[in-house]
Amino acid sequence: MSDINEVIRKKPWIGWSIFLVSMVTVFVLGLFAASIMERRTEALVAYTPAKPIPDFEPRLKVWGENFPREYVTYLKTQETNFVTKYNGNDVKDALEEDPLMVVLWAGYLFSRDYNRPRGHLYAIEDIRKTLRTGAPKDAHDGPQPNTCWSCKSPDVVRLMQQMGPMEFYKGKWASKGHEVVNNIGCLDCHDPKTMNLTITRPALVEAFQRQGVDITKATHAEKRSLVCAQCHVEYYFKGEDKYLTFPWDKGITVEDIEKYYDSINFVDWTHALSRAPMLKAQHPEYETWKMGIHSRRGVSCADCHMPYISEGGIKFTDHHITTPLKTINRSCQVCHRESEEELKQNVYTQQDRVMELRMKAEESLAKAHIEAKLAWEKGALEAEMKPVLTLIRHAGWRWDFAVASHGASFHASTEMSRVLGTSIDKSGKARVILARILAKHGVSEEVTMPDLSTKAKAQKFIGLDMNALKAEKDIFLNEMVPKWDEQAKIREEKY
Amino acid sequence: MSDINEVIRKKPWIGWSIFLVSMVTVFVLGLFAASIMERRTEALVAYTPAKPIPDFEPRLKVWGENFPREYVTYLKTQETNFVTKYNGNDVKDALEEDPLMVVLWAGYLFSRDYNRPRGHLYAIEDIRKTLRTGAPKDAHDGPQPNTCWSCKSPDVVRLMQQMGPMEFYKGKWASKGHEVVNNIGCLDCHDPKTMNLTITRPALVEAFQRQGVDITKATHAEKRSLVCAQCHVEYYFKGEDKYLTFPWDKGITVEDIEKYYDSINFVDWTHALSRAPMLKAQHPEYETWKMGIHSRRGVSCADCHMPYISEGGIKFTDHHITTPLKTINRSCQVCHRESEEELKQNVYTQQDRVMELRMKAEESLAKAHIEAKLAWEKGALEAEMKPVLTLIRHAGWRWDFAVASHGASFHASTEMSRVLGTSIDKSGKARVILARILAKHGVSEEVTMPDLSTKAKAQKFIGLDMNALKAEKDIFLNEMVPKWDEQAKIREEKY
Repeated sequence: MSDINEVIRKKPWIGWSIFLVSMVTVFVLGLFAASIMERRTEALVAYTPAKPIPDFEPRLKVWGENFPREYVTYLKTQETNFVTKYNGNDVKDALEEDPLMVVLWAGYLFSRDYNRPRGHLYAIEDIRKTLRTGAPKDAHDGPQPNTCWSCKSPDVVRLMQQMGPMEFYKGKWASKGHEVVNNIGCLDCHDPKTMNLTITRPALVEAFQRQGVDITKATHAEKRSLVCAQCHVEYYFKGEDKYLTFPWDKGITVEDIEKYYDSINFVDWTHALSRAPMLKAQHPEYETWKMGIHSRRGVSCADCHMPYISEGGIKFTDHHITTPLKTINRSCQVCHRESEEELKQNVYTQQDRVMELRMKAEESLAKAHIEAKLAWEKGALEAEMKPVLTLIRHAGWRWDFAVASHGASFHASTEMSRVLGTSIDKSGKARVILARILAKHGVSEEVTMPDLSTKAKAQKFIGLDMNALKAEKDIFLNEMVPKWDEQAKIREEKY
Repeated sequence: MSDINEVIRKKPWIGWSIFLVSMVTVFVLGLFAASIMERRTEALVAYTPAKPIPDFEPRLKVWGENFPREYVTYLKTQETNFVTKYNGNDVKDALEEDPLMVVLWAGYLFSRDYNRPRGHLYAIEDIRKTLRTGAPKDAHDGPQPNTCWSCKSPDVVRLMQQMGPMEFYKGKWASKGHEVVNNIGCLDCHDPKTMNLTITRPALVEAFQRQGVDITKATHAEKRSLVCAQCHVEYYFKGEDKYLTFPWDKGITVEDIEKYYDSINFVDWTHALSRAPMLKAQHPEYETWKMGIHSRRGVSCADCHMPYISEGGIKFTDHHITTPLKTINRSCQVCHRESEEELKQNVYTQQDRVMELRMKAEESLAKAHIEAKLAWEKGALEAEMKPVLTLIRHAGWRWDFAVASHGASFHASTEMSRVLGTSIDKSGKARVILARILAKHGVSEEVTMPDLSTKAKAQKFIGLDMNALKAEKDIFLNEMVPKWDEQAKIREEKY
């Protein structure tokens, strides 16, 4: 040290340089420390709205002022779609892609119109435009009840709180068109004060309650699946009031739910060709996820479909809800070490296997419906047809359960294969009995199948006048819908 | 230090004590070092036989003198069995457990006798005792060719090298009973000089050769599955010479192999009831493993079925080949973090799902055979029956492929479900056509099924005289087999 002192004494600029460098270093360190503390603070207060959000605020952009990252990513659900290539064209129409479904749903509204799924931000547009909601002429007209709105909008949270679920469900779908106008959004899953995940739909709470479970006390981790289970489940409209009900009282396997529906003689519709008392599966994503290995391993819906993003010091949940195949690095590779390409191929391989059984199930079931139609025409008796119709009901239910759930062929490949295998077994058995019935009534040759190669041909075969349905729908869309939007605008401006 | 010197000078025993303690410590360290070096040496020379092993040595105990760990664990394959509980009893008889199989194999030797699998050390006992090898009266009698010995013994390695595979396969099974007496053992998979894994059976080499692949150049890691694939595969006996051949030339899926067999009009047997030209699947473990995720992830047969054991400084391969469910800690938990109980339940869940489709497939196929029998009896024509018989052939093949392979319902759950689903589809279609044919020939009621609730009833139904078959077999076992053993003993003493 004495040498250094000597040097500095002789050349004082060296001492000043050391002093200056030290000062600059300390200053920069101070800047870093401030930045770190700021980000910590930012993270801590991230979930407390800076600008308070009103209790039933349904509008995304109001929430978005407080939570720009979640808002911006949620807006990307406009890009979420499952359009496929078919004969070289982009196909969003599932009936065009697979016209046999028109026959399988003959007599039911799904045979008119069924599109491949797309993002939450199309909920209102799609429910208004689909032919399945018909073309109501006034508030008390149309094929559907208000229950159909249940999963479409955060406006439903307000209405259910204000009038109670029973009142909400009652009446025709057209009677609440002016009240339910915002697409699925923040309020559907979040508490506007704390941002905590919240179950806003009573049907889920009630279904668990009947099993003695209070899910309002579920953990945050559990709610990362349960908020999705509010809507992504099998359900039915119970009784005259069309009360939204989950058929889980005997369990959630395809057989459990089938037993439940059978025990209450529930019928979604009577098939137009076979006259079978059919069941329509909705979208049992929660149930089929529960049947798979990811659920067994404690992986929630959000873990894969809403993976975390790190931006600077902030880790937040990606609200662009879509297939995890779009976010393999953040969804799958958190646990799996394989390459993106390999993981994608693994998924496709399983899906292709299930898809093959799906098509076998559809072909067999379509034939059963068409052969049953001929049997009735040839004078088959109710008593003869009864076992056939039960087999068709159960075969149809099992096929629909496996197919209606988005992603089931991935979530629970083996279970869906089992379900489809039992569907094939049952429709095959129905066809064996039908062959005997047809023979008794004079038909011993193979029943000729109609040309079902396009949606148009299939719809014509089942007797749908699509032009008339579309014309009615256009009147509804051009006349009633603009009025709904006007009324809603006036109401929302009062907030 | 000067203080210590002063103390020692006054009390010399303290100095001697320190000296002694130092000596003892150094000695013990020396012992440790020697032990470590010895174990290193032991590990390095572990795979060089201390006592040379002759070129075609088939006897385990000779190899075992050099490799006591591998030997002792291999002896435990005597404990390997897949006996199940059925009606409260231990069942090793697969036909007793599932009598429908008797009907499915009517006209084929499997309908007489089919046991659940057990360890490699029963290979010779089991092939001698099974009714499937019949009761030869001399070296040129009996239903089976020498090809049946191919996978049963290291004696086959010697014979094939000495006479070539073509000569080996030729002739009746009874002609080589005195030559093939040692159970599957070391020589089947190991080079006696280097202990390297070695493919000793030509059929596997030839199957890959036809695809342009030279598996004699496979890596050690690949051979950890390929040595198993010498036997645990689908195969058939080609042509008059009964040349052991793997039907992989069009691929290894159930459809690929079906196409291969169809293209050469191969028929394992003509079904005794339906007269369908049937295919029998052997045990396509290698193929079904290839269809599953463990194969995709590079996990070899040995990784799970022969996991490593650490004993002291030596890590060696457990030669107690059995289900990995017995060694979950060393087999599964090397990669999977879940508890033993959880992993076991995961396997059972998948197996139960596949098992359900298996039973549906069997019931449907058994009915098809029985209905076809009645159709023939009622005067059905060849031309009418042709499409039915093709459907039955393919449905039977698919069922058999999924069921014959040990572990397929675990190795490739979804693929096996797909295969069984297509089996159900095809037998269902066969039954629909049969219902029409039967109606044309005067039978329009449901065909009554016989009582097939036990193996005995099912065997009686297909017309087997089991007492006669067993009596013949006893004569063979009591008279011919002891002579084989005597001759073999004399031959082996000359080594």
